[in-house]
Amino acid sequence: MKLKRLLITGAAGGLGRLARARLGHVAETIRLSDLSEMEPAGPNEEVMRCDLGDFDAVRAVVDGCDGILHLGGVSVENTFDAIRNGNLTGLYNTYEAARQTGCKRILFASSNHAIGFHTRETKLDADAAFAPDSLYGVSKVFGEAVALLYHDKFGIETARVRIGSCFPEPKDHRMLATWLSPDDFVRLVEAVFRAPRLGCPVIYGASANAETWWDNSAAGYVGWVPQDSSEPFRAKLDAAMTPPAPGDPVNRYQGGAFAASGHFED
Amino acid sequence: MKLKRLLITGAAGGLGRLARARLGHVAETIRLSDLSEMEPAGPNEEVMRCDLGDFDAVRAVVDGCDGILHLGGVSVENTFDAIRNGNLTGLYNTYEAARQTGCKRILFASSNHAIGFHTRETKLDADAAFAPDSLYGVSKVFGEAVALLYHDKFGIETARVRIGSCFPEPKDHRMLATWLSPDDFVRLVEAVFRAPRLGCPVIYGASANAETWWDNSAAGYVGWVPQDSSEPFRAKLDAAMTPPAPGDPVNRYQGGAFAASGHFED
Amino acid sequence: MKLKRLLITGAAGGLGRLARARLGHVAETIRLSDLSEMEPAGPNEEVMRCDLGDFDAVRAVVDGCDGILHLGGVSVENTFDAIRNGNLTGLYNTYEAARQTGCKRILFASSNHAIGFHTRETKLDADAAFAPDSLYGVSKVFGEAVALLYHDKFGIETARVRIGSCFPEPKDHRMLATWLSPDDFVRLVEAVFRAPRLGCPVIYGASANAETWWDNSAAGYVGWVPQDSSEPFRAKLDAAMTPPAPGDPVNRYQGGAFAASGHFED
Amino acid sequence: MKLKRLLITGAAGGLGRLARARLGHVAETIRLSDLSEMEPAGPNEEVMRCDLGDFDAVRAVVDGCDGILHLGGVSVENTFDAIRNGNLTGLYNTYEAARQTGCKRILFASSNHAIGFHTRETKLDADAAFAPDSLYGVSKVFGEAVALLYHDKFGIETARVRIGSCFPEPKDHRMLATWLSPDDFVRLVEAVFRAPRLGCPVIYGASANAETWWDNSAAGYVGWVPQDSSEPFRAKLDAAMTPPAPGDPVNRYQGGAFAASGHFED
Amino acid sequence: MKLKRLLITGAAGGLGRLARARLGHVAETIRLSDLSEMEPAGPNEEVMRCDLGDFDAVRAVVDGCDGILHLGGVSVENTFDAIRNGNLTGLYNTYEAARQTGCKRILFASSNHAIGFHTRETKLDADAAFAPDSLYGVSKVFGEAVALLYHDKFGIETARVRIGSCFPEPKDHRMLATWLSPDDFVRLVEAVFRAPRLGCPVIYGASANAETWWDNSAAGYVGWVPQDSSEPFRAKLDAAMTPPAPGDPVNRYQGGAFAASGHFED
Amino acid sequence: MKLKRLLITGAAGGLGRLARARLGHVAETIRLSDLSEMEPAGPNEEVMRCDLGDFDAVRAVVDGCDGILHLGGVSVENTFDAIRNGNLTGLYNTYEAARQTGCKRILFASSNHAIGFHTRETKLDADAAFAPDSLYGVSKVFGEAVALLYHDKFGIETARVRIGSCFPEPKDHRMLATWLSPDDFVRLVEAVFRAPRLGCPVIYGASANAETWWDNSAAGYVGWVPQDSSEPFRAKLDAAMTPPAPGDPVNRYQGGAFAASGHFED
Repeated sequence: MKLKRLLITGAAGGLGRLARARLGHVAETIRLSDLSEMEPAGPNEEVMRCDLGDFDAVRAVVDGCDGILHLGGVSVENTFDAIRNGNLTGLYNTYEAARQTGCKRILFASSNHAIGFHTRETKLDADAAFAPDSLYGVSKVFGEAVALLYHDKFGIETARVRIGSCFPEPKDHRMLATWLSPDDFVRLVEAVFRAPRLGCPVIYGASANAETWWDNSAAGYVGWVPQDSSEPFRAKLDAAMTPPAPGDPVNRYQGGAFAASGHFED
Repeated sequence: MKLKRLLITGAAGGLGRLARARLGHVAETIRLSDLSEMEPAGPNEEVMRCDLGDFDAVRAVVDGCDGILHLGGVSVENTFDAIRNGNLTGLYNTYEAARQTGCKRILFASSNHAIGFHTRETKLDADAAFAPDSLYGVSKVFGEAVALLYHDKFGIETARVRIGSCFPEPKDHRMLATWLSPDDFVRLVEAVFRAPRLGCPVIYGASANAETWWDNSAAGYVGWVPQDSSEPFRAKLDAAMTPPAPGDPVNRYQGGAFAASGHFED
Repeated sequence: MKLKRLLITGAAGGLGRLARARLGHVAETIRLSDLSEMEPAGPNEEVMRCDLGDFDAVRAVVDGCDGILHLGGVSVENTFDAIRNGNLTGLYNTYEAARQTGCKRILFASSNHAIGFHTRETKLDADAAFAPDSLYGVSKVFGEAVALLYHDKFGIETARVRIGSCFPEPKDHRMLATWLSPDDFVRLVEAVFRAPRLGCPVIYGASANAETWWDNSAAGYVGWVPQDSSEPFRAKLDAAMTPPAPGDPVNRYQGGAFAASGHFED
Repeated sequence: MKLKRLLITGAAGGLGRLARARLGHVAETIRLSDLSEMEPAGPNEEVMRCDLGDFDAVRAVVDGCDGILHLGGVSVENTFDAIRNGNLTGLYNTYEAARQTGCKRILFASSNHAIGFHTRETKLDADAAFAPDSLYGVSKVFGEAVALLYHDKFGIETARVRIGSCFPEPKDHRMLATWLSPDDFVRLVEAVFRAPRLGCPVIYGASANAETWWDNSAAGYVGWVPQDSSEPFRAKLDAAMTPPAPGDPVNRYQGGAFAASGHFED
Repeated sequence: MKLKRLLITGAAGGLGRLARARLGHVAETIRLSDLSEMEPAGPNEEVMRCDLGDFDAVRAVVDGCDGILHLGGVSVENTFDAIRNGNLTGLYNTYEAARQTGCKRILFASSNHAIGFHTRETKLDADAAFAPDSLYGVSKVFGEAVALLYHDKFGIETARVRIGSCFPEPKDHRMLATWLSPDDFVRLVEAVFRAPRLGCPVIYGASANAETWWDNSAAGYVGWVPQDSSEPFRAKLDAAMTPPAPGDPVNRYQGGAFAASGHFED
Repeated sequence: MKLKRLLITGAAGGLGRLARARLGHVAETIRLSDLSEMEPAGPNEEVMRCDLGDFDAVRAVVDGCDGILHLGGVSVENTFDAIRNGNLTGLYNTYEAARQTGCKRILFASSNHAIGFHTRETKLDADAAFAPDSLYGVSKVFGEAVALLYHDKFGIETARVRIGSCFPEPKDHRMLATWLSPDDFVRLVEAVFRAPRLGCPVIYGASANAETWWDNSAAGYVGWVPQDSSEPFRAKLDAAMTPPAPGDPVNRYQGGAFAASGHFED
């Protein structure tokens, strides 16, 4: 079930570099793309710089790939103009290029900020209503909608992964709930490109943490079972920083500071 | 509860002209806006042409209004560029202008094409998952997400109305289910701007038709009770045209031809 | 949308005679079938006696029909042998004949006894779990399962109508909830054979009674809206008979005496 | 199905006097009870003063009745001591007396304040979680729990009616949603004491208003169909008073001022 | 809690031989029955050949047993005649014999093919609607309905176990999701006959596999917790065979080839 | 996140003594309160006797505490008078004192008897309807309602823990499902007072037993993951006692003997 060529967009970012380092075995060739400069191509690698907002460039990058790990675009709150180029136009360009070139399977890095205005005591599953906490979150709702349209109309399968916080270890108390270990991320990508039938599931990208806001049972058919937990890092975090007080608005919503803070332009 | 000034965007279109003709009593002044030319202002009217894609122009149009009936933008499937300008950028501009100028209540003309890839035998309520049947439908999902963000973060209330088919009478057999009579549309706008508390509900814009795919019970607090039915037009339709055969794909999805047809650029 | 030839099975029974008298306009030809003797064929009618347990006979009866109103088989509790012939084998024969001859739409007279062991205070909709109250009720669960299989595998559409009590007027207090007026039955058959897309819905066959245990909202797309109510008959019933006392087990379950009584062979 | 003797507690209050005036036909004898003085007994009436907090007195009042319309106790927010006597002890005394004397059916006037902390845009049905907006609301949750215990353990049937606002006409804008017309109240009591099987349903006591927060479909088997609507009173209300502004906290919760206001003792 | 005598029907089949080899400790005597020849009786065993379609024979086999492990009947798609004898008549005969002889607890080997027309991305729990993928699957729906009737009416408790694929190890990629390890099967039978209260649950018979379509949480009270996983067999399977391509219809439905293939008689 | 002063009510009871012995690290000072005599205060302990029915006494005990572990009151079925003093008045006094003194977080020991009239085959989650099996159970419903009111109106957070059976090991077969190990209880208290945001969740207090009736997934954000299981004690229990026969009413309801037995006063 090895792919011929996997495209990784956003390959110069944090997740992109992790994917590049750890996922070479998923395809015969890994094609790396980003707006920023990347390390030169290694064995079985191709490096192609590309602005996601430029359809012709995106089409060239997508052409020849039978899988896409779509990590590209803006990854935090930003101006509408920046988000429009990377996450609206860029997202559309990626799917339209996949349609035109026959690519049939995509892992789309959506975000927990698509549902970040739910309170923390709300357990979310794949049917949860969207509740974006930012323009960035709105752009991820848009991406999930495009992915579903291209699934229903053209048969392109997408794992819509609402990534929590993928770092070597949790960096604050909120991440005790949202942490996705690099190993669990790698296992997730493997499962998505291995599944006999992917469909268009919503998957929450978090490890098997003790604190949990999300329920992935609807995506059990994909076969991803996270193995790690943030709990062993709790004592270290407690020693390193004071958590926000119970009444702090940052604790109220799943999106944390994204939801608690005002508008980007403010 | 009369508004000071109601802005009607898309005032040159079909719904816009209906609103202009019938809803003058809702506000002391009606401000009419469109990219196209409109009839000259009558008593208590203001006419201002505006491209929704131009933020400064939108801000000027929104300024001074305490209610918006947002009918503007592209209203059928189109190229991504056209949809982006009118329905992505234009939608964002409208909400951002409302935030900056203090407008607190909007009726956003979303569309049944935001959920058009559900089959007809699926009864949808306000919690139904989005299932856009077109790029146009995707843009309406985007608009509903922006509206919710501006509600949750800034307290702007929006009725997200998934309009079915608002015409003097149903024009084909599908509209027996989707028809929204002009009178029911008028009653809906009245109820939305009269409600003591609007929140951010999803409302399906259809009359009390015998064939029905949609359940508005979650929005019962708004107080809109449609009074009309498409049923009296059935015989006339049967006489005028042959309905699609049972096996015709146009019958399969709620979005009808939008869902059954291929991509706009094809 | 007039059918070419509608087959009515069980045409010698109560519902069958009603259908014969009232539904001639639904098809160019009405074919009437029963194990028992029937009135001679009138204009546009065909009469064919048939044992549903005999596949070849059933195939001959079904051949040439583009719609079936399947009222045939055993209609009350009986021995397993009797039920097996009419409602298991006979049901299978009907669907298999439809598949072989290309008939694509069926109204299957299922029964409230398929769900009769639910208590009366349980509101049932189309997703309610089966709860047969008798071997007869089990046979209707079987029929609904066959109908669904032939829909999912072969595209034959069936309205699975769980008929309450179809009589000129309610005959006891339980029927205040279960009564299906003859006029509403006629409207239901018309709607089922007129619907642009039928699928395989479960529909509860009851009028718009004040006492109600059933919710047909999931089948709203079929366009059947019952018009009658049992309420005007309440006083007459109260005068004619004493209703069962509140503690009487016959009041406990929706199936009434079917659920409260022991086994047929007892 | 006429009762032998119906006890009406709280007979000196507003609902109690309404019941006395309109429900004489429900039983051969009406027994009226209250802590306060009542009009002298008319034909077929018995008048017995009683403190609900005194078990022996309550037992004497309940003895000999085969139905209870329990309107007694405190009916608005009050001190815990007052609520404890009337609505905790008094409620328990009523059910325990019913158990000891063999009374099998009760209509308990619970209140919308048992669920008053739900927001108005939350549609509630019989399964809605309790959300009391006051100590008074807590006492109604307690009463509903006692009623259910006595149903499950001793077979006493209760209609737990969460009464909205029962007055000759709506008195403020909130009552456009919560109004229960006197005629609909009378019809409800009739239906509750007539039903062949009552069980222990939750029923929202509101008329068929255009603005609605509540869904009674689960109790459809009781056969109560409200006939009136608050809508005709809207214009009169609009003329008589200014409704609370959209941002007023009194609009936020279903309980209105009960939820928006602080603690009784404050 | 050891049974006096456990009847195992279908004892000559694969599951039957496994049960015979591993479950001797569940009862003082094990009675083995099949239409086919079986190994001679060992210590504490009784061997009785029997056609399930013959009521008198079934009654004799059931008589004296206080538990039945009902594995008999047709176990794959077949003609309607074959399925009718083994799985309709035979199933009825087994329950009717249990009723007549006083046997109160049964484990009925239903099948995932009773719900095989659900897509793989549909997570099913005990409330899932039936969706048979074959006549065989219809017969299992029938069996589940008979079991429920005999529970509700006569108090016979049944675990309705929708068995996935019980083999020493998974034999193809679909079984990565459906595999039930022999050890987990043994633990399941033990739990079913040990439970203080069984009721009539639906249980999906699959191990704790990484790929999973089924949710057994509703049956948690039975106390069966599967211990095994198919995951360790994945590499071996990958090496041994090419899995079906993503677009292969066999991947679409849970029933696999049963759902994807046409009618048995075709 | 260490508390300044944790009040433990009911400190002389079984759970109270366990909490005293094991939870000293949760706060700088532990204040112990009970109606009965307690062991003298150790280091960092304060001992204050108090009748929960006496508001002034309760206020004095609560004053100065920033957390309450509320174990006090009647803990089994009793007369209404006893329950009223400890569990109605006493509960109210505790919350009102917390409000007046500014205490913001409480763990309230509710009970499985608040939902004990659900059958064992009903899986309950945090949304389950109350179903008290006793006056004691009713008092716990009351307590949960007060806790929610004080959360919604005054921002006091409560974990409403429906404790199963907290003993060193399960004492009968029912406890195989309801057992809460002392270690898991300790972990639960730690999690409740550590959570960045507690809200007002319902949590079922049971260990990770194989037999389970309860689903705590909605409270996953609290971060409590029970580690123990009753299963290792099964063989010992089987050897020590005969479990109730399957038909025994004590097996029918989750509340066991509380639900199966009659009224306390009987």
